[in-house]
This record gives sequence, C-alpha cells and structure tokens, in this order.
Amino acid sequence: MRAKPIRPPRGFRFAGVACGLKKNGGPDLAVVVSDAPCAAAALFTRNAFPAAPVLYDRALLAENPGGIRAVAINAGIANACTGEAGLAAAAAMARGVEAALSLPPRTAAVMSTGVIGPQLDVARVAHGAAAAAAGLDPTGWEGAARAIMTTDTRPKTAFRQAGPARLFGMAKGAGMIHPDMATMLTLIVTDAEAEPRQLDRLVRAAVDASFNCISVDGDTSTNDTVMALANGRAGPVAEPELAAALLDLCTDLAQQIVRDGEGATKFITVEVRGARSDADARCAAKAVANSPLVKTAFYGGDANWGRILAAVGYSGAAVDPALASLRIAPGASAAGGLQLVGRGQPLPYDEAAATAIFADDDIAVLVELGLGEDAATVWTCDLSHDYVDINGHYRT
Amino acid sequence: MRAKPIRPPRGFRFAGVACGLKKNGGPDLAVVVSDAPCAAAALFTRNAFPAAPVLYDRALLAENPGGIRAVAINAGIANACTGEAGLAAAAAMARGVEAALSLPPRTAAVMSTGVIGPQLDVARVAHGAAAAAAGLDPTGWEGAARAIMTTDTRPKTAFRQAGPARLFGMAKGAGMIHPDMATMLTLIVTDAEAEPRQLDRLVRAAVDASFNCISVDGDTSTNDTVMALANGRAGPVAEPELAAALLDLCTDLAQQIVRDGEGATKFITVEVRGARSDADARCAAKAVANSPLVKTAFYGGDANWGRILAAVGYSGAAVDPALASLRIAPGASAAGGLQLVGRGQPLPYDEAAATAIFADDDIAVLVELGLGEDAATVWTCDLSHDYVDINGHYRT
Repeated sequence: MRAKPIRPPRGFRFAGVACGLKKNGGPDLAVVVSDAPCAAAALFTRNAFPAAPVLYDRALLAENPGGIRAVAINAGIANACTGEAGLAAAAAMARGVEAALSLPPRTAAVMSTGVIGPQLDVARVAHGAAAAAAGLDPTGWEGAARAIMTTDTRPKTAFRQAGPARLFGMAKGAGMIHPDMATMLTLIVTDAEAEPRQLDRLVRAAVDASFNCISVDGDTSTNDTVMALANGRAGPVAEPELAAALLDLCTDLAQQIVRDGEGATKFITVEVRGARSDADARCAAKAVANSPLVKTAFYGGDANWGRILAAVGYSGAAVDPALASLRIAPGASAAGGLQLVGRGQPLPYDEAAATAIFADDDIAVLVELGLGEDAATVWTCDLSHDYVDINGHYRT
Repeated sequence: MRAKPIRPPRGFRFAGVACGLKKNGGPDLAVVVSDAPCAAAALFTRNAFPAAPVLYDRALLAENPGGIRAVAINAGIANACTGEAGLAAAAAMARGVEAALSLPPRTAAVMSTGVIGPQLDVARVAHGAAAAAAGLDPTGWEGAARAIMTTDTRPKTAFRQAGPARLFGMAKGAGMIHPDMATMLTLIVTDAEAEPRQLDRLVRAAVDASFNCISVDGDTSTNDTVMALANGRAGPVAEPELAAALLDLCTDLAQQIVRDGEGATKFITVEVRGARSDADARCAAKAVANSPLVKTAFYGGDANWGRILAAVGYSGAAVDPALASLRIAPGASAAGGLQLVGRGQPLPYDEAAATAIFADDDIAVLVELGLGEDAATVWTCDLSHDYVDINGHYRT
C-alpha cells in the first residue's frame, strides 16, 4: 500500500517536538500548519464525556470551516474529564499555537490523547509550540506522526494521489481491543480544492467504510477525532477521484491501527454475508471481532470455532441456526476457505488444517447467514498477554 | 454467607462421576434425582444458537412442568452448534439417564457445558449415568457440584432455609469476563411445595436480581441455564420467605461465580445511582464492568479512573457530564468513599489513597449520574494474564 512515492501535499509544514507531557520525555507535540486557509471537516467522538479539545474543535469548525490554518496535537494527557479547567486549557493551547505561528485567532484546531483525568500543562504546550514553529518543514511529517504516539509501537502515515492533488494522513491509536475507549486520532491534509461541506461529505463516507469498520459505532473514546484540511493549492479534483483516494488512505491508516493494536500478534478479517440488513451484518461481524473469547483463541492459535458462532448468536443480528455457515482461511478472505459449518450442521474437517489457519499471522473468518444480501467486513486483532501488561500499567 | 448448617433438601440424591468426556479424566457427569415428581422452572439462554440440551429442556418443561424427576449435567462438551446430530444426542442422553434411574420417559432434564462444536459421546454418558445411579446419595451434592466444573477452580454451592423448606443450589461458570459466552449453569433444588407457575415467577425474579447482575441481558452463551426443582416434601412455604431465600441463594452463587472468574484476582462492585431509568443504570454499570481497559487497570492496581467515566460515556445511558460524580472505596460499597469527580469537575485527591484502593482485593465503584432516582449494582472481576492463558488454550 505504500509503494507510491512519498510526496506531501503542497503548502503544508510539519513538526514534532518534546514539551514534557510524556513521562519518558519523548516527542509529545505535533504541529501541522498550512500556508493558506483550509477547508476543514471533522468527525468527533459520540462519547457522552467528550474531551475538552473535542468541544473546542466542534465549536471552532462550526464558526470557521473555511479558514483553518493549523492543528496541534499533544500526547500524554487526554484533557478529558477535566471539567471547566480543561475547557480553558484547550482554548489556551489553541491560542498558544496561534501565537507561536503568528496566525489570526480562531484558526488553530487542537487534539489531545493520553491519560484521562489529569489537567493539561498549558505552559509546557505553549513552550513546545514555539519550538515546533522554529522547526516546521514540508518533509517533517514523520516527526509529527511520531509525536502523537501513545502506546503505538510505530508511527502510522499514508500518502495518496488524486489527479493533481496529494493527500497525506497520519493516525495514532493502538488500544484496538475495544476501540471505543482507546483514543484514535487521525489528521488528513490535502492540497486539493474542496468546499467545507463537500469535504465533510467525503470524509464521512470514507470514515464510515474504514475507521468505523475497526470501531463500534457510537462506542468511541472521549477524544476520537478524524479531521481533514484542504488548502486548495493543487486546484480542483474530480470528486470521485478524491473520494476514492480518501477512502483508500483511510483504509490504509485504519488497518495500520489494527496491526499495531495493543499487544496484537495477528490481523483478523471478519466478514459476514447473507445478512438481513447492513446493520445486522455489521453488528454480527463486530460481535465476533470484539469477543475476548474469540480474540484469545486467535492469540493461542486454538481453532475454537464454536466461539465465533456463539458471538454471532448473541450479537442481536437476525440468525437462523439452520442456515448459518462458517469458513476460515489464512489471509484477507475466507471465501473458498476451510468450511467448518454448513447450513447449521458442523462438518467433518481436518483439525490440523484448522489449527494451521489459526496459527497464521493473518486470519480471515467468513460467516454466511443465508438470510439476505447484506454484508460487512470488520478488521480486528487478537488479545494477548501484552495487552494486559500495557493496560494494567498504562499510567505508570 | 455459608455459616448456616448444611442440610440438603429432603428427597433429593446426588452423584458425580467421570464418564470420559473431559480430557483429563476428571468427574464430568452430575446426576440429581428426586424421590417425588418436581415442579420445574427454568430460564434459558437467549443466544440465537441455543445448544441442543437447551432446546430439549425447553420442550420438556413445556410438556411436563410438574413431573420432573432428575437432571443430568455433563461437562467437557457443550453439545452446541452440533446440528441435528446434537439434538438427537441430547434426547439420547435424557433417555439414558431415565433408563439408568428406572424413571418414566420425559422426566429427566439435561444440561451440557464445555467446548462448542464437537458431538457428545452418548454411549459414554449412558455408561456414566449407570455408574451415577449406583452412587446416588443425599449427601452427594459436593461430588455433583465438582462434576459440572470446567475452568472453575472450585465447586460453587449454597444452602438456604425458608420456613420448613430447605434449598440447595449448585452453579458452574468461570468465564465471567464476558459472561455472555462462558456457559453459566445453575441447578436449584428445594423440598418446598410450589406450583410450576409460581416457581417460574419466583425464579425469574431471583435471577433478575442476581445472575443478571453479573451478565449482560440477552448476551448469554449457547448453553446458559438456571433450573429449579421443587419436590414439595417439606410442604407449603410462605411465598415471601421462599422468594427471599431464593434471591439470597442466587446472589450467593452469582457472587461465587464472579469470585472464581477466569483468572480473577479481584472482586469489583460497580454501582450506578441517579440514573434516569433502571435500564440506564444497568447499562452504565455493565459498560464499566465489561470494559477490558477498566478491568486491566483493576488487575494492575492502577487508579486510572478516567476509564470508568469513559465507559459510562459510551454506555448509551443518558449522561450530563456536568452532573456526574465518581467515588471509589475498598470493599462492597463506595458510598462515602474517596471522591474523584464531583458534578463533572475532577477533584484533588490523594493519589496514594487511590492506589491503595485499587490494590485491594475487593473494590467498589460508585457513579452518581444526578439525573434521576434509578440505581443498579453489577458485580465483576478483573482481567488478568491468567484469563488470556485459560482462553488461549481452552480446548487443549
């Protein structure tokens, strides 16, 4: 997916610096700035406790959707569940970035990720913003992507081309066992020309078919944000071409997040076909993808396939046990793979073959419900010892 | 809770034997028989793939709710997702038990727990039933409770008295991280006199306030069953007294299941108050109790309390961030405990005190939503390395 040449969109500069929010002293503040005002669109968490930066950005983009110039993202402190002091801190962070970059007021958006609860040290962020301003560079995207990492083991970036326009995206997020609670932040910048409303429509469609396929709808963290900025430097682009590039870029980033899931050792593709509705297909696939019993079986390489059907059975999707079938295979699709259940009846199969599939790094599951025409695919990872380690001592 | 004298209900005999279903050769078949026909009531899984014994019992109790004489429960094989062969096996298991005990047809119920998918070896069960018949004893309850264990580390039993009547209950179930997929079986026998309809009503009420507080409604395994038998040998009992004893017994067994949760090192009580509705209170409490991030934080003894509010925030319950409060404490209730959040504002607190609470074996969490009068309590356990070990290699 990364074979294409790395050509950042025109008119954007990037920096990543350490400002002292992370206990380990690593880079924890990314700044991205555009030479020209950008059309901006964003999707935010639906958690009932949205973080302060989410509240700030939501108001900012409603007020100035065509004039955003910069985004600052800090890691280490989520600035969530921080009350009124947290709201003031998010606003102060934005003002500090605007000041450091000599930008007009209300042109910088902010995002935060890290521990929920503690207050953000605004002085450190302002200090860091000044340092970042001095180091901004059109090729500084990797440093920016590194500065937003928390439990991520590697930066997540992707580039695409759409006609004359270039797109760059960076993402963070590794707590994908329950994506609902581990912050997922994504920033996409492009030099394509786009109206805010058009950009909003294109981003929503791309996110729905990419990030929402690794996350349970509505079950998002306090901070989850996907934001896109378009500065128009490359001129207009045919909409289908831009839409395809956006979807491709988002899918790339979403799969990178799953592959770097906390403690993940396997990449699992869960496909449900023959559902009575699109919602049924999604909820059945997500029930399988979110089941700790299924995930630990994948981790252990134990072909305990009954857990897959049991998860479909409690998902809430319409199911007729007499019609359901199940296949597994190594790789990205189980179509034509090893069949374990056919129209409700367990089939004789080669246990060694099943075990070999479960031992693979990439595993595909296909559940055929036989009730309709709707289908869905969800990507997930396994549940390992490292996940327990990482989350048992995240703050320490 | 177990200080009362152990006096099994009159007219019941128990046995537990090994019949070769468990790979380790341990006891795997329990038989409980009543000298007189029993009123029977049961609650079954709502999973869309109900196991064969669930389908068998559902039909049996509809046909003969006042004439049940015996229950046989096997461990090792769940007889779920086994198609038509599985249905035939469940019926054959019941016939084998009736034959071994010289009972009329359609008087024995069956339950199964274990691996989903494989077929039940009916010949082994019939052989085991004959052995059990020879060993039935009024004091054999502990052997029976041991024979239904899977990943349980200890048998779960409880005794209560209701006026002249005695109650005995035994349960199995240890996969309580997601109780939805790990089979929970409970058999309650009493010598109280009860009509099937009355027993059904009383059992439903008791289960709703006990087992359903450790399990997500509707998210039950393929095999979950709670069954009660009343043989009337002690004569009539005042209904409030019987109801109270049933609830107390079920709560005892439900909490035993959580304490023996797979890999559990801590017992956690999650209480939500001030919810707009009973359903809201339950779903908020369950979101906290089921969050892997909250559970791993408890395991690690890390007072990462923001995860608790984040879980409430995505639960779907009505929430006003400006009204929510949070307390934690050691033990069974956090009322009056250490307050971390007050009406949406994080409060200064002693980090050492919070860490000490999270390090306790029994931890209570209290979320006050400030929106209404409804409350709910859910019991859960932490998520540990042992959970991953147990479930990564369950079949092996």
